[in-house]
Amino acid sequence: MDVDKRVVCIEENVRGVCSKVKRKGREILNDFSITAPQFEALLVLTKRKNITIGELSNNMNLACSTVTELIYRMEKNEFVRRSRDLNDKRIVKIIVMEKGYKVIDEVLNRRREYLRDIFKDYSDKEIDVINKMFKVLNNSMSL
Amino acid sequence: MDVDKRVVCIEENVRGVCSKVKRKGREILNDFSITAPQFEALLVLTKRKNITIGELSNNMNLACSTVTELIYRMEKNEFVRRSRDLNDKRIVKIIVMEKGYKVIDEVLNRRREYLRDIFKDYSDKEIDVINKMFKVLNNSMSL
Repeated sequence: MDVDKRVVCIEENVRGVCSKVKRKGREILNDFSITAPQFEALLVLTKRKNITIGELSNNMNLACSTVTELIYRMEKNEFVRRSRDLNDKRIVKIIVMEKGYKVIDEVLNRRREYLRDIFKDYSDKEIDVINKMFKVLNNSMSL
Repeated sequence: MDVDKRVVCIEENVRGVCSKVKRKGREILNDFSITAPQFEALLVLTKRKNITIGELSNNMNLACSTVTELIYRMEKNEFVRRSRDLNDKRIVKIIVMEKGYKVIDEVLNRRREYLRDIFKDYSDKEIDVINKMFKVLNNSMSL
């Protein structure tokens, strides 16, 4: 197969895989009282501790007002709380609460179960190749 | 690496790849006068010709009213047109117009260029493995 045909094929299958992962992800989130943007924000907040709403907006590529509203709902749900910086009281940081960590754990475990089930008939060697490939691919992709 | 650790790793990297593909996809769509849901609808409509709004809603997992509004905007953009069934005038089918096919071609080409660039330093053999893996994975995943 020439390179172009392979790229056409890869694009189609990457799109298919991502679309199915997205659909499954939303299906899983339906079982928890959290929306997709709230979950996405939680994932960012656990990776980049104590960031501000401005930094979170940049990271999520969303307007500050949208993220402020998002954080308000996440506070009501007790996933996060806001805390004033001790050194500069003008700065408000977002802290993930225990319930936030718990929902991440539970959702990610469900996503892992989904993938484990897909790979149940794959050999260890095949799983190793897939693992390595996704890692390399993830690292090659710029944000 | 034991199976559980690999699944944790695969889940993280699949999520990373899908998140970057999504972000890139939206970035590409910004250069065209089409929104993400409109583009998604166009992709379904080119695969399943002449379907109704009800069938499209089912396929996209969206409310009929949302899809009706979506199709209205796509008609205004001349991506699709509605056509009454010749045998049963109560049935309205959605037909993709030339401008719709053109935008799909252009957007998919941009997505292919993005992937081609990511794979530029990969060997032919590596590209073959990735191609095969995504195909198998796409087929193993249920919708």
